[in-house]
Amino acid sequence: MKIALLAIGNELLNGKTKDSNGQHLAQILNDFGFQLNAIHIAPDEKDDFRQLLDFCFQTYDIIITCGGLGPTLDDKTKNFLAEYFGKTIQYSEQALEVVKKQYQRGERVYDEEKLSYHYLPESFTTLENTVGYAPGLSFSQDNKKLFALPGVPSEFAEMVKLHIIPQLIDPHAQIKMKHVIVKTWKVPESKIFNEYVPNLWDKLAQYGEVSSLPHLLGVDIAVKLESNDEDQLKSHEQKILELIQTSPLAEYIWHIGPESIEQVIINEASQKNLTIGFSESCTGGLCASRLTDISGSSQVFWGSVVSYANEVKMKSLSVSSQTLKQFGAVSEQTALEMAKGARAHLDVDIAISTTGIAGPGGGSEEKPVGTVGIGFATEKNSGSKIYQFKGSREVLKRRFSEKALMTLLEIIRGF
Amino acid sequence: MKIALLAIGNELLNGKTKDSNGQHLAQILNDFGFQLNAIHIAPDEKDDFRQLLDFCFQTYDIIITCGGLGPTLDDKTKNFLAEYFGKTIQYSEQALEVVKKQYQRGERVYDEEKLSYHYLPESFTTLENTVGYAPGLSFSQDNKKLFALPGVPSEFAEMVKLHIIPQLIDPHAQIKMKHVIVKTWKVPESKIFNEYVPNLWDKLAQYGEVSSLPHLLGVDIAVKLESNDEDQLKSHEQKILELIQTSPLAEYIWHIGPESIEQVIINEASQKNLTIGFSESCTGGLCASRLTDISGSSQVFWGSVVSYANEVKMKSLSVSSQTLKQFGAVSEQTALEMAKGARAHLDVDIAISTTGIAGPGGGSEEKPVGTVGIGFATEKNSGSKIYQFKGSREVLKRRFSEKALMTLLEIIRGF
Repeated sequence: MKIALLAIGNELLNGKTKDSNGQHLAQILNDFGFQLNAIHIAPDEKDDFRQLLDFCFQTYDIIITCGGLGPTLDDKTKNFLAEYFGKTIQYSEQALEVVKKQYQRGERVYDEEKLSYHYLPESFTTLENTVGYAPGLSFSQDNKKLFALPGVPSEFAEMVKLHIIPQLIDPHAQIKMKHVIVKTWKVPESKIFNEYVPNLWDKLAQYGEVSSLPHLLGVDIAVKLESNDEDQLKSHEQKILELIQTSPLAEYIWHIGPESIEQVIINEASQKNLTIGFSESCTGGLCASRLTDISGSSQVFWGSVVSYANEVKMKSLSVSSQTLKQFGAVSEQTALEMAKGARAHLDVDIAISTTGIAGPGGGSEEKPVGTVGIGFATEKNSGSKIYQFKGSREVLKRRFSEKALMTLLEIIRGF
Repeated sequence: MKIALLAIGNELLNGKTKDSNGQHLAQILNDFGFQLNAIHIAPDEKDDFRQLLDFCFQTYDIIITCGGLGPTLDDKTKNFLAEYFGKTIQYSEQALEVVKKQYQRGERVYDEEKLSYHYLPESFTTLENTVGYAPGLSFSQDNKKLFALPGVPSEFAEMVKLHIIPQLIDPHAQIKMKHVIVKTWKVPESKIFNEYVPNLWDKLAQYGEVSSLPHLLGVDIAVKLESNDEDQLKSHEQKILELIQTSPLAEYIWHIGPESIEQVIINEASQKNLTIGFSESCTGGLCASRLTDISGSSQVFWGSVVSYANEVKMKSLSVSSQTLKQFGAVSEQTALEMAKGARAHLDVDIAISTTGIAGPGGGSEEKPVGTVGIGFATEKNSGSKIYQFKGSREVLKRRFSEKALMTLLEIIRGF
């Protein structure tokens, strides 16, 4: 059974909004042992919609659309679908009932004159939206099923669980799925499989589909396990972890599981009751912004002194003018004083500092673009080191912040 | 010219990884006045790839794939492409040169025995990867162009700028293209074309293809002009600008041109010799990080005090404990004291503060998730205001920072 998502909306193609329903749908399907086959993102244009719907109906068994069901003029999905299937849009008693129920739940009154949720293409069925107000639609033809759901992520996810999952689950055959994810750092992807553990890939592939996902400064290795036997899944997961943990790769593993480094930092710092702060020059607030993307970060993250100007390094972080003069802003000495200053000024258990050259200007022979000093300070210890990275300004900022977060995680683990 | 992205990778369809190249590509294309037509996300499976490539070659002029070019066994794109186009994979001198250059840049030696980056399908060209090690590929057939790029976002984005954009902007082409971009704020998209200037779209469409691109908190209106006459392009541009600047939309225009708000802030503050600082609570460093994405920002941007904890608000920004107790951290009063404190502590001409509730927790009936206080302080003036926005934690952080940057730009313009 092949399942595809067709996300509709110009806003998903102008670079300002990222579709998140694809990932939500994949996750929900996965949780129930199903696999999403494809995600297609198309603009609110009739011709694009028609072409893509043709392709989807030829290729998949279940097509789920999201977006374009709201009350404004650019919400065109219902009309596109009616036209595509050659159906007229009709008043529907069933739809009216569903919509009235939704409005009652929200303690509002549905206005039949101004809104048209109770009109839908002939032979379509209205699907209740238990979170918001725009209902969904479903339609079957030639053993293919189409579900049209709203684009608002919270509404979409609830409606997938309520209306689609029950139609997929066959109580007699339930293949379960599990992803084993091992996150490594400080070793390049090519070395893992070519030098360190040349037979690792084949060994892992005995258990399921293997993938290798390189990140900014590390590689995730994932194995997808499938079985109808819960115990077998567990035993295979155990075997995979043993295999990796007893290999030369073991020392490069920093986490087992799907969590991001930001999430792991927040989790482990919370467990140890540690508070965190930064002093950021070259990363310009990116370290702090990444940690505060995580809900619950306020438990451990106290703050950051973004000190782009040397004046701020001196005044807000007590970096000495002598150090800046003698060694420069990008130096082990400045990184160290910045970390110590941040710890004192923010009054945190661990402070991490970044000072470097993100480019494109500002580099020299001795300190080229890509040079970064990263410092740390705790009550009992402190230190700093210079690293070199490659990339554009934006990439370098991300690599610098990644190295700072890696340093932070190592310090947390030393507590 | 229709452009589509085909992102390949099982990891993008199991709910563990979200594609971000689609958004990056859309953004880069947009910056250069082009539009992404669709994003297709498919698994590492030959049949799926073949079906989708058939569809893409029928539908689009430029097809960009990402993913599956690395050194591991799940990197199958090169083989898929060779098979799809009926090409053999051959040793390539051009590829070897490119790859050796990449490795030299990284101060590593390319191992011809272990790696196969220097083998590629017949008639394909190797594209240099200036960030990582896996090169890209390009191929033309029947006036259609295919680019295969690595999936690592930093590498992908750099290679789009380096290899694809220059091919889209053809300096020798007879037909010249110009994008007139007018950026507006504080007015919703539906009102612009339905209420404020009902005939604007049709009037603009006389000159070229019109698009309306809603952003986080504003709408860009773009008109694509095409002509082989440079003077005509200029005169049409003039007419478009006159049309908009004499319409009721005029007061909502904040910029004419493709530059981002970050870039406009840096430019205008530099011209006026102003220094800028932030105090950020809910945006967690995002305002500072956005400004420091711009090369040259160190001319005007001094620093930011990211004060997630109230302790930091009091100690590093001199917010009074009385204010926090009486009005709460998310209040006009706290926002005002934060802005004043940042101005004094960072010693800048303009300070902007943010304090709000990004959620998902922490909201109340009086101050729901999405509430944000934004303050400003200059030598002669100061103020603050509460706003309400909608969205997920990630979206709210971006909206809060966008409103802060809009406030900053208005203050700069008042100088």
